Amino acid sequence: VFRGFDLAATGLFAVGGARLGAEADLDLFGVLVVAFVSALGGGILRDVLVGDLPPAAFRSVSYELAAVAGAGIVIVWYQLVREIPSGVITPLDAAALGLFCATGTAKGLDVGTNHTLAALLGMITAVGGGVIRDLLLNRVPQVLRVEIYAVAAVVGAAAMVVAVRLEVPRARAMAVGAAVCFTVRMVSVGLDWNLPRVRGA
Amino acid sequence: VFRGFDLAATGLFAVGGARLGAEADLDLFGVLVVAFVSALGGGILRDVLVGDLPPAAFRSVSYELAAVAGAGIVIVWYQLVREIPSGVITPLDAAALGLFCATGTAKGLDVGTNHTLAALLGMITAVGGGVIRDLLLNRVPQVLRVEIYAVAAVVGAAAMVVAVRLEVPRARAMAVGAAVCFTVRMVSVGLDWNLPRVRGA
Amino acid sequence: VFRGFDLAATGLFAVGGARLGAEADLDLFGVLVVAFVSALGGGILRDVLVGDLPPAAFRSVSYELAAVAGAGIVIVWYQLVREIPSGVITPLDAAALGLFCATGTAKGLDVGTNHTLAALLGMITAVGGGVIRDLLLNRVPQVLRVEIYAVAAVVGAAAMVVAVRLEVPRARAMAVGAAVCFTVRMVSVGLDWNLPRVRGA
Repeated sequence: VFRGFDLAATGLFAVGGARLGAEADLDLFGVLVVAFVSALGGGILRDVLVGDLPPAAFRSVSYELAAVAGAGIVIVWYQLVREIPSGVITPLDAAALGLFCATGTAKGLDVGTNHTLAALLGMITAVGGGVIRDLLLNRVPQVLRVEIYAVAAVVGAAAMVVAVRLEVPRARAMAVGAAVCFTVRMVSVGLDWNLPRVRGA
Repeated sequence: VFRGFDLAATGLFAVGGARLGAEADLDLFGVLVVAFVSALGGGILRDVLVGDLPPAAFRSVSYELAAVAGAGIVIVWYQLVREIPSGVITPLDAAALGLFCATGTAKGLDVGTNHTLAALLGMITAVGGGVIRDLLLNRVPQVLRVEIYAVAAVVGAAAMVVAVRLEVPRARAMAVGAAVCFTVRMVSVGLDWNLPRVRGA
Repeated sequence: VFRGFDLAATGLFAVGGARLGAEADLDLFGVLVVAFVSALGGGILRDVLVGDLPPAAFRSVSYELAAVAGAGIVIVWYQLVREIPSGVITPLDAAALGLFCATGTAKGLDVGTNHTLAALLGMITAVGGGVIRDLLLNRVPQVLRVEIYAVAAVVGAAAMVVAVRLEVPRARAMAVGAAVCFTVRMVSVGLDWNLPRVRGA
């Protein structure tokens, strides 16, 4: 079940990435690469940082297939995909964010880095793919500029770490982290929250 | 012999990178860095991903010397180098691409990732340096937008993997992969092929 | 004592990064990330390249705290910080540069890469954070375009390697490297040196 969720999250991030790639007028290969990077980049970054190499995404072909499937959907049905309202996309994306945040934090706890850094690793897993995607598309990563997105991942990861400290079983702690991340993200979109800019302070 | 080819390919990619760096109006150090990254970036990325650290490029100084030699040629004879016609540059670049693709795929097979992922690693080795170079020059990587370049590397890597599966000896399989990559690249330039854009589909 | 210097250098680079992040109109989270990357990116890149994973910055929370402290100073006192004259900033930054250059070279010598590559690693440690910062801010890394900055790090690293070869004790060799780097940087700013551009040659 867990693996199924993970692959679904990978596919969802690939759809989002492929959409942005197509909008940036990339060719077929470029759209595929951006989809891959969006879907697998965060996990690869996490595995590089903890030294678990080759990264999980390079050991099993199923993650690549999930990413290709996500990109394929956009390539084949681009006109349809671009008309999906954000009311559908935002919750799906928030769910994938929550899941990646939980798996990343779990890996951080496994390699025995301390708890603060495990939460940092969870956040990197969740937003890393989007950051590399934005670098490839030659723009300042969205996550640095607007909305409550990475902060949702940090809060979710912190909630999971607290749950683990309280000796909640691992699977349940991951569910807590993912749920908190999802909730913070959805509430912040609903209420149109943004972090303050430092310049204006 | 093999090592000689590898160093020649490194030098060629360094020349290409240094040319772009000089055109982007970088200073002497910037041109050197862009040459290094173009020549060694793909191999370093490959070695980081398979966990073979420090990367080969950091264990032997001969790769650095090849990259410096390539950059030096551009720095000393810039006016001459920029007038080399693309009819000379394209085949040399395609040959270096084929070679990097073969060495990357070989390494992927060595670390025992599966065959699909070995081919992916061959492609990353071949185009990774150019992608990092374009990021440093602050533009969308060329390989995501135009021409059959990365696709040539993928096809070459796949051909090599098939050859290995058919129990062709390793050295000959590498030659097959490099030759296929070179041929696909040259034919696509000759016939002015481009991949379709998703947006227009 | 050594560790104290290292943390101080981390905090200084974080202040510089946070300032640039605030000027680029990032939100609070973005300013924090840019501060982190500026302060810890070079060391993380070095640890990834030598395979010392997870990176030192992920094993002890004190580096994160130094980076957060640096960012916090900018966030709270932004109006004050932006008015600090460059006559104060440049020497502090040059001192941090020298220190990072010495610690990076030391690590390169420890992992037994050869001496040339240890110096290269020292340079990467010193300027790597700034390069990643500039990529995130979507601009060509400053270090590739203007001033004697990376070159100061290379010269400092080379001086340290020479000192180690002459069997100067490690701590003293590091002090030599850091001092040479600092001096080259300060003299080059004082005399307004720039490297020649290749294009103009």
